[in-house]
Amino acid sequence: MPFAFEITAQDAKSAARVGRLVTPHGTVETPVFAPVGTQATVKTLSPQELRDLGVTLVLCNTYHLYLRPGVEVIARLGGLHRFMAWDGPILTDSGGFQVFSLAQFRKLTDEGVVFRSHIDGSEHLFTPEKAVYLQEQLGSDIAMCLDECPEPLDREVNLRALERTHAWAVRCREAHTRPDQALFGIVQGGVFSDLRAASARFLAGLDFPGYAIGGLSVGEPKALTWPALEAAIDHLPADKPRYLMGVGTPEDILEAVERGVDIFDCVFPTRTARNGALLTRRGRLNIRNACFADDPRPIEEGCTCYTCRTFSRAYLRHLMRAGEVLGLRLATLHNVHFLLRFAEEVRQAIREGAFLQFKEAFLATYEPPSEERRLENLQARLRRRT
Amino acid sequence: MPFAFEITAQDAKSAARVGRLVTPHGTVETPVFAPVGTQATVKTLSPQELRDLGVTLVLCNTYHLYLRPGVEVIARLGGLHRFMAWDGPILTDSGGFQVFSLAQFRKLTDEGVVFRSHIDGSEHLFTPEKAVYLQEQLGSDIAMCLDECPEPLDREVNLRALERTHAWAVRCREAHTRPDQALFGIVQGGVFSDLRAASARFLAGLDFPGYAIGGLSVGEPKALTWPALEAAIDHLPADKPRYLMGVGTPEDILEAVERGVDIFDCVFPTRTARNGALLTRRGRLNIRNACFADDPRPIEEGCTCYTCRTFSRAYLRHLMRAGEVLGLRLATLHNVHFLLRFAEEVRQAIREGAFLQFKEAFLATYEPPSEERRLENLQARLRRRT
Repeated sequence: MPFAFEITAQDAKSAARVGRLVTPHGTVETPVFAPVGTQATVKTLSPQELRDLGVTLVLCNTYHLYLRPGVEVIARLGGLHRFMAWDGPILTDSGGFQVFSLAQFRKLTDEGVVFRSHIDGSEHLFTPEKAVYLQEQLGSDIAMCLDECPEPLDREVNLRALERTHAWAVRCREAHTRPDQALFGIVQGGVFSDLRAASARFLAGLDFPGYAIGGLSVGEPKALTWPALEAAIDHLPADKPRYLMGVGTPEDILEAVERGVDIFDCVFPTRTARNGALLTRRGRLNIRNACFADDPRPIEEGCTCYTCRTFSRAYLRHLMRAGEVLGLRLATLHNVHFLLRFAEEVRQAIREGAFLQFKEAFLATYEPPSEERRLENLQARLRRRT
Repeated sequence: MPFAFEITAQDAKSAARVGRLVTPHGTVETPVFAPVGTQATVKTLSPQELRDLGVTLVLCNTYHLYLRPGVEVIARLGGLHRFMAWDGPILTDSGGFQVFSLAQFRKLTDEGVVFRSHIDGSEHLFTPEKAVYLQEQLGSDIAMCLDECPEPLDREVNLRALERTHAWAVRCREAHTRPDQALFGIVQGGVFSDLRAASARFLAGLDFPGYAIGGLSVGEPKALTWPALEAAIDHLPADKPRYLMGVGTPEDILEAVERGVDIFDCVFPTRTARNGALLTRRGRLNIRNACFADDPRPIEEGCTCYTCRTFSRAYLRHLMRAGEVLGLRLATLHNVHFLLRFAEEVRQAIREGAFLQFKEAFLATYEPPSEERRLENLQARLRRRT
C-alpha cells in the first residue's frame, strides 16, 4: 500500500493535529503548506531550491498542463515528476476550479463542463472521467475529483451544485485506476453548514483516502468560512487527511489548523512576492516603498533564508524597481521559506500541546491586511488568475 | 600593490596567451569571459550561482547604476560588491557607451556629454572626472576612462573623436584616486588601423595598468574588425591586460584571443538565452522550435551544467512558451556555463601550445549565424539596448 496517513500528535485544547502522510514519492509531515507550481514550476524557483527550502509537497494545475504542454506529452516524457524534475510528492487539482474561474466560456451539464481555453480560445470538455484520466497521465501522488465550484453565498445554487458534485465524485471513484495515486473527494456546500455536513457525510460514505474542502475562502466573509469548515470536518473521518484548497495566509492557516485541517496550498507566498510584498512576523512589508532605498537590513532579522542571509532591503528594492528577475526569485524564496518555517512552528506547537498559545503569540505581532484590503486583493487576484 | 598581471603561458603559433590578473577581490585567469550584470545583477542568476558556474569577473554598467539606484546609495551600503553580494572582481564601464547608444539626447563638448535618462528623461552631464568619481563610488576593481564612441566607419568623425577621447583619458588619469581600483585607458579609432595604432601609442604613453579596445564589433564588417584590433594590440605593451569591450560570441573570442586579447564581456550568452537561443558545440539551438516538444534529451549531451543534468529540452521549451521565469534562469545558466567552459578550454589549449588546433576543431562543428543574420541580430539588439 503506497499510501498511509498516521496522526502522530494531537493538540490538547483544539482539533489541531500533526500527521505523517506517506506517498509513493515521500513522506509529508502535516499540517503542510504546498506551494503552487501551476505550469509545472513553482514560479521563479528551481526544484533544487524547493528541496533546499524544505518543501515536501507541490501542487500543480491540471487545467494549465492539459492546455500546455498537454498531458500526453508529459506522460511520454515519464510523468510530471520527471518532467519538472521534482521527485517529491505532487498534488494535482482536477482542473474544475480553473474552468469555473479562468476559462472564458462554459456550458455545464451533468455530463461535464465545456470551456474555452484562456490561451487560444479553443473549446474543450472536462468530464469526471477525463479529469481522472488527465491526472493519471500526469501521475501525481494525490489527485482530486472533478467538482462544481459555485459562488459560496447562494443556497439554491449550492444545493443543486452539490448533487452534481456528488454524482461526479462517484464517477471519478469508479474511473480511477492508478494504485500509486490517491484520489481525494471534495466537500462543497458554500457557506451553509448543513450542506457542508451533508456533503462530508456523502463523500465519507465513498471511503476516499483523503478529503478536500473546496469553495471556501473565495471572497465570502471570514465569519461564514469557519463554521462551514467546522461542519464539514465534523462529518469527515478523523483518520483521513483533510485538505483545505487554495488557503494559505498565515492567519487562515491558523484558523483551519485549529479546526483539524492537514494540507494547504496557495499562490499567496509566491504571488505576493512577485508584487513586492514580503512576509515578516509583523505582517507584510512592501519592498518597493521609498523608505527601504537605503536600508541595509535583511527583510527580517534572524531569518535564515538565502535572501535574508545575503541581501539588503535596499538591494531587493532596487531589483524590484529595475524589473530584474533576481528580485522576483529572492522575494519568492523568502516568502516560501517564511510559510514553511511557519508550518514547522505550527507542527512543533501542536506536538508540545501548545497550539493555541502559538496562535495567540503569532497573531499578537502579525498584522494581516484589513478585511477591506483583503477583498481588494482577492478581487485583483480573481481578475488576474492564471 | 593590489594589482598585478602575469603572463603564464604563451601560445607557440599565435599571440594567444594565458595570464593571471590579480585584483583586490581575487585572481582572474585570462582569457576570461565576464558576464554582464547591467543593473548589479547578471540577469536571472544569483551571485551563488555565478560562483558555482566558475565566473571570476562580472561587468556592471555605470550608466544604469548612476541612474538607478544611484552610486551614492551603493556607496553608503558599502560599495557595489556588498550591494550585489558578489565578492569577486568587478569591472565597470565608464557609462560612455550607454550615453552614446541608449540615452535619448546628447550634447557633446570637450567638457563632457549631456544626455537624457532613458528612464525618466531627466538631463545629466558626464565628464571624465565624473565618470571616474562614479566608478570610485561603486568601488569596482577595474574602471574605464570616459571615451567618445563614434560610428566606426567614418574616418573624419573618428579622427576628431580620438582627440577628445585622448584628452579625456588624461583627465581621467588625473582624477583617479583609488589605489584599490585599476583604471584602464580605452583605444578608439574605428576601423582605421593608423588611428588605432596612434591611439594605442598615445594611451600606452600614459602608462595605464591595462587597456580596453572599444568601438569594435559594433556592426562593421568583420573583415575590418580584426585588422583594426591587430593595429591596436601591436602598439600596446605586451605585459598589460587587454580588454576587447562588448565582444563575446565564441567565434569572435577565438579571433581576438588569437591576436592577444585577455578580457571579454558581452550580453551575448545572457540575452540570447532569454530569447530561447541555447549554445551548443554545433551552434545555437532555438528551444522554442516545435521539434523539441517531445525531446527528452538535455540541451547538449555531456554538458555538466545544472540545466543539462536535470531537465529535458521538452521541459525547457514548455517553460519558455509558458513565459516562466525558471525557463529564463535555466537557459541563462546553460549559456553562461557554455561560455565559461569554452574560455577554460581556450586557456587549456594555449597552455598546451595548441590554440590554433583548438580554434580549428571548434569552428569545424560550431556554426555561427550567417553575416546577414548577425547584422539582423545586432540591429535588433541596438534597438532594444537596455
